[in-house]
Amino acid sequence: MPGNTFGQIFTITTFGESHGKALGCIIDGCPPLLELSEADIQPDLDKRKPGTSRHVTQRREADEVEILSGVFEGKTTGAPIALLIRNTDQRSKDYGNIAESFRPGHADYTYWHKYGIRDYRGGGRSSARETAARVAAGAIAKKWLREQFGTEIVAYVTQVGEKEIAFESETHIHDNPFFAANESQITELESYMDSIRKSLDSVGAKLTIHARNIPVGLGEPVFDRLDADIAHAMMGINAVKGVEIGDGFGVVAQRGSVHGDELTPTGFKTNHSGGILGGISTGQDIRVNIAIKPTSSIATERESINMHGESVQLATHGRHDPCVGLRAAPIAEAMLALVLMDHALRHRAQNADVSVSTPDIENL
Amino acid sequence: MPGNTFGQIFTITTFGESHGKALGCIIDGCPPLLELSEADIQPDLDKRKPGTSRHVTQRREADEVEILSGVFEGKTTGAPIALLIRNTDQRSKDYGNIAESFRPGHADYTYWHKYGIRDYRGGGRSSARETAARVAAGAIAKKWLREQFGTEIVAYVTQVGEKEIAFESETHIHDNPFFAANESQITELESYMDSIRKSLDSVGAKLTIHARNIPVGLGEPVFDRLDADIAHAMMGINAVKGVEIGDGFGVVAQRGSVHGDELTPTGFKTNHSGGILGGISTGQDIRVNIAIKPTSSIATERESINMHGESVQLATHGRHDPCVGLRAAPIAEAMLALVLMDHALRHRAQNADVSVSTPDIENL
Amino acid sequence: MPGNTFGQIFTITTFGESHGKALGCIIDGCPPLLELSEADIQPDLDKRKPGTSRHVTQRREADEVEILSGVFEGKTTGAPIALLIRNTDQRSKDYGNIAESFRPGHADYTYWHKYGIRDYRGGGRSSARETAARVAAGAIAKKWLREQFGTEIVAYVTQVGEKEIAFESETHIHDNPFFAANESQITELESYMDSIRKSLDSVGAKLTIHARNIPVGLGEPVFDRLDADIAHAMMGINAVKGVEIGDGFGVVAQRGSVHGDELTPTGFKTNHSGGILGGISTGQDIRVNIAIKPTSSIATERESINMHGESVQLATHGRHDPCVGLRAAPIAEAMLALVLMDHALRHRAQNADVSVSTPDIENL
Amino acid sequence: MPGNTFGQIFTITTFGESHGKALGCIIDGCPPLLELSEADIQPDLDKRKPGTSRHVTQRREADEVEILSGVFEGKTTGAPIALLIRNTDQRSKDYGNIAESFRPGHADYTYWHKYGIRDYRGGGRSSARETAARVAAGAIAKKWLREQFGTEIVAYVTQVGEKEIAFESETHIHDNPFFAANESQITELESYMDSIRKSLDSVGAKLTIHARNIPVGLGEPVFDRLDADIAHAMMGINAVKGVEIGDGFGVVAQRGSVHGDELTPTGFKTNHSGGILGGISTGQDIRVNIAIKPTSSIATERESINMHGESVQLATHGRHDPCVGLRAAPIAEAMLALVLMDHALRHRAQNADVSVSTPDIENL
Repeated sequence: MPGNTFGQIFTITTFGESHGKALGCIIDGCPPLLELSEADIQPDLDKRKPGTSRHVTQRREADEVEILSGVFEGKTTGAPIALLIRNTDQRSKDYGNIAESFRPGHADYTYWHKYGIRDYRGGGRSSARETAARVAAGAIAKKWLREQFGTEIVAYVTQVGEKEIAFESETHIHDNPFFAANESQITELESYMDSIRKSLDSVGAKLTIHARNIPVGLGEPVFDRLDADIAHAMMGINAVKGVEIGDGFGVVAQRGSVHGDELTPTGFKTNHSGGILGGISTGQDIRVNIAIKPTSSIATERESINMHGESVQLATHGRHDPCVGLRAAPIAEAMLALVLMDHALRHRAQNADVSVSTPDIENL
Repeated sequence: MPGNTFGQIFTITTFGESHGKALGCIIDGCPPLLELSEADIQPDLDKRKPGTSRHVTQRREADEVEILSGVFEGKTTGAPIALLIRNTDQRSKDYGNIAESFRPGHADYTYWHKYGIRDYRGGGRSSARETAARVAAGAIAKKWLREQFGTEIVAYVTQVGEKEIAFESETHIHDNPFFAANESQITELESYMDSIRKSLDSVGAKLTIHARNIPVGLGEPVFDRLDADIAHAMMGINAVKGVEIGDGFGVVAQRGSVHGDELTPTGFKTNHSGGILGGISTGQDIRVNIAIKPTSSIATERESINMHGESVQLATHGRHDPCVGLRAAPIAEAMLALVLMDHALRHRAQNADVSVSTPDIENL
Repeated sequence: MPGNTFGQIFTITTFGESHGKALGCIIDGCPPLLELSEADIQPDLDKRKPGTSRHVTQRREADEVEILSGVFEGKTTGAPIALLIRNTDQRSKDYGNIAESFRPGHADYTYWHKYGIRDYRGGGRSSARETAARVAAGAIAKKWLREQFGTEIVAYVTQVGEKEIAFESETHIHDNPFFAANESQITELESYMDSIRKSLDSVGAKLTIHARNIPVGLGEPVFDRLDADIAHAMMGINAVKGVEIGDGFGVVAQRGSVHGDELTPTGFKTNHSGGILGGISTGQDIRVNIAIKPTSSIATERESINMHGESVQLATHGRHDPCVGLRAAPIAEAMLALVLMDHALRHRAQNADVSVSTPDIENL
Repeated sequence: MPGNTFGQIFTITTFGESHGKALGCIIDGCPPLLELSEADIQPDLDKRKPGTSRHVTQRREADEVEILSGVFEGKTTGAPIALLIRNTDQRSKDYGNIAESFRPGHADYTYWHKYGIRDYRGGGRSSARETAARVAAGAIAKKWLREQFGTEIVAYVTQVGEKEIAFESETHIHDNPFFAANESQITELESYMDSIRKSLDSVGAKLTIHARNIPVGLGEPVFDRLDADIAHAMMGINAVKGVEIGDGFGVVAQRGSVHGDELTPTGFKTNHSGGILGGISTGQDIRVNIAIKPTSSIATERESINMHGESVQLATHGRHDPCVGLRAAPIAEAMLALVLMDHALRHRAQNADVSVSTPDIENL
């Protein structure tokens, strides 16, 4: 399969470029009889969409989703669900500079060498704008998981640049432009982001994705382990450079006597594993961390070459996020939802006799 | 597809349990006319095999590979290549304890809940012994990559427990039992590992995988990016809990003006990206780090439950690696080779007119 | 993968129902740099579309295709190509009868039992209207094949009901409403079809699909043989009940001394194989026959049951083809094109060193 | 995926050449807890194996199967099941003639052009000997289907050359060397086959495959319809040139008023569809016909060319079936079983809430 399909049984195939006519996807493999309308999808798109605060790109997109197929009388039918999001803000401009040159940190150079042609308008297919389709599909997966297992998935930013963000409460996440589970540091973060923007630079971010009410038994060893597929999903988000499950890189210096989560008749005593053992969910909460690189488009001049191999100086002006990580939370939630739903269906195919249920022992 | 096949065009499907009759795999999609014999595969298996030093499990396995098909008169024919490794040291013993109870940190609990049945002998399918098949297949991929592009892949341990291992030279890697690119710290590491073993405990490890002479253009956005597939491959290795590409989690605190690798007419000036931009190889060296958790089987008693939900105390005696990370280097090399070869063939399918070649600008 | 994706490397995923908002597909894996616009696609859609003669359904659909992505400055970019066809003639009517009952010969009964829900408007997803998306995608495959190898694919009707249609010349195919390679029998066929329609009944049809200028070497034994994949493609067209390659069922009574095509230094002497040996193309012309069942929707009353298991009498009035086979030619051409292009790319992935070229010996 | 894997959820990947060391396969996706041993598989292999009568090849192969993995304490574990069949009768001989020349009707020519290398010993990978692995895997699918749904699959020869074989009773099928559901014509068939062999020629055959106790709802429109996947499976058997579902090519001359199977509260009145509507099983019996070409290896001299393009005369002496169709019955049964089991699991993944059960109305 070419690279624009995700999943094995619950699959999404996305299309669209940053400044093309439309974005969207086809979801194939959604079980029938799920109640579904645009209203189930739009809220997640709204969380991801640009222009919501001064700390993100000022591009204006309604990001309105239209369901074209697969739903009849308010319910899924088992037929493929096509979702369409028309691009509205395709600001006409002179791309001369970008069209000819490779912006440092961007995919310009690699797309050019791979395909021999490149849609340079706003990054074309390599733009994070494509993730709108993933978020839309993820909203469907979230809904299904919630109805089946009560699964809840939440992502939040735990570090921006060198600023660690203390976890206070998940209730704060959507009350600030940083997707921070925090209330007390917001003013400090606002100032920090303003200073980054004024310095014509950008910073990276770290996010945590946390899922609870997970059925035990999801994951298909030995290659399509749940953790492997989560890593694939997360590293497949634009700008992600690192993925951790559970204690992640913290395990290097741990002792086995600490790491291995002990069990009691009432459940696991700890959750160093992040809810996955042997590539299969334990029924405990799943914890994932991701590292997102600083935005490559910055207003500072940088050295590069053009298509003819000549030296150029490039600075990116215009509508760009000073920290792309700030809008990654809805995307990361969506990707985790897609993985979990796909694995729930995969599990069901082969193990119908073994119930997919949250374990009767207490989660940690 | 169920979970035991890896790759899309160059695929391997593995089989076998720790204490079953045999391990092996079928490789499908290997191009014809590659010269191949067991002698091309055995050296990598020998690096991975147990019993080579006092710091790893003392299980004795010859790990001799037999090519059953797909090779004729010393060359691959395009037909599937079946590789067989018979298990020889299936030490007969009483598994009563393990058979009934779930060892902390192991896949016992999850396999039981997923499948309703569990081959408890040595961990069955969840044992890292299965990776012998991957290493065997990876040796074929390595050979093909070397002949096509001159690609070289090397993995080494950069940290064991809290001990960081300085990089001195790759020439040392196979001269010590730690797969360390280091000569001066080996005595210290020997003592350290002895102390861990004596304390009846285990430690984690960090490895770096480094590949050079990579063609530009490998990777299939937006989901099967090269970095996403590497993450999938690495997180799919037993005990891996974290994966980094390039600067990895280091990007969180970086500025965009530092991270984005500048280009000059003679090549990239830096390699913070780890050789991948937009999910496609840049032609620079690929750098990956992985975190491996401490061995779960330790001789210290730990709390757990049995299949009836009753409390038990478990300690694992016998042949176990005090640091499973020490034998992970050949596995990580193999997995990276499998990803790269698969992507080289995927690229070739769709972009025959665009040459898959190392860029003419200098690699960093 | 769920069932709405076709192909392995050049893939199409279709969506849409007969009376939904739109039909369409995403094509993933199209090589970059192919010149493409709607004008390359529309002519094939026009051949398939309804309402073009009195012998087919009178539903009016413009079937205008819009390319939403994957094309930049007139060329494919390697990114997924989304095609959209809005439904325009969604005649509002009372579906009460059909909504509750299972029409004989239709998929009503099976969709209901499979999914527990059924979009009954015009057959929903099971309608042949869905094939518009395939025809659109097939037009792209045809163009690519023509440019790469000079491949030409043509389908024509060789039998309608008990009327065999003599092959006169391919030039006639688009000059009559029967897709017949014939000029002299057209008046007779017109009368025949009129009589069928007046008798409130329908008839089956047989089609031949003929492809020339085929590269040698396409097909991936042992399961994805070229003939096996053609059979999959053809039997996957609505109403097809039989598929033949080369001499087809005629081989049963043949002798080996007749069937096995002899070779001479200037080429094959005969083509009983239909251009495929061992599942791989020989470079000769490919010949396929398909059998299409009579239209299930007829104005004659038939016995059936409703969703409550009660007896009902059903007759279908309105816009229906008295011989669905008459519009199958463009669909069959499209499906063969999709198979051939997919296999050309699959071949290229694994056998780059072996040229995909038409053989230098003469085709028959 | 390369071409040696069959199925999507219940998959088999085969390996092995006619005169290689071994044949076999890996089955991935078999549900756990199925009781399984070699004794469940061997009987089907014995039906397919050569040398059982004077009417088939006299090659002697024990075709003994060994289960290498995936079964523990007599039950499947959910892990991949590897099956191994060692070749024993690799008669050493001079292949000089065959090694250099392309036998008419064989895959010699196409394998050579596709791969640039060819294992000429006994046809290598293109030999029907490979189907032993399919039969072995099919035996597992048959067992699972029987236990889940009571499904029974039987194939028999209905025509050999110009001799039609009347259906008398399925009980006769394994009492004669022709897999004929017939007792009275056996003597006549014996003479007929003797005369074919004496004339140094071969003939084709037609087989019917009949499956009963089929759950309603199997099949994944629009591409992976049950009938499409059956066609793929059947046309993928060596030497098959035609496939029919239900009335097959007989539908061409049918009227819609005849073909569309009427329903009553107690079930379908007829079964012209062959048990499949809209690509989904109706719960009725499935009926498939296949056409198998005459054996290409005959002792009569035929014209061909060698690898250097020079004219040669070829006759095949030695151990060959005068009618390959005679041994195809177990293979066709196996392939249908593989399709049905795969689709049962696919259905289960997406439609767990909709029971996969035989319909409560009477089958025909």
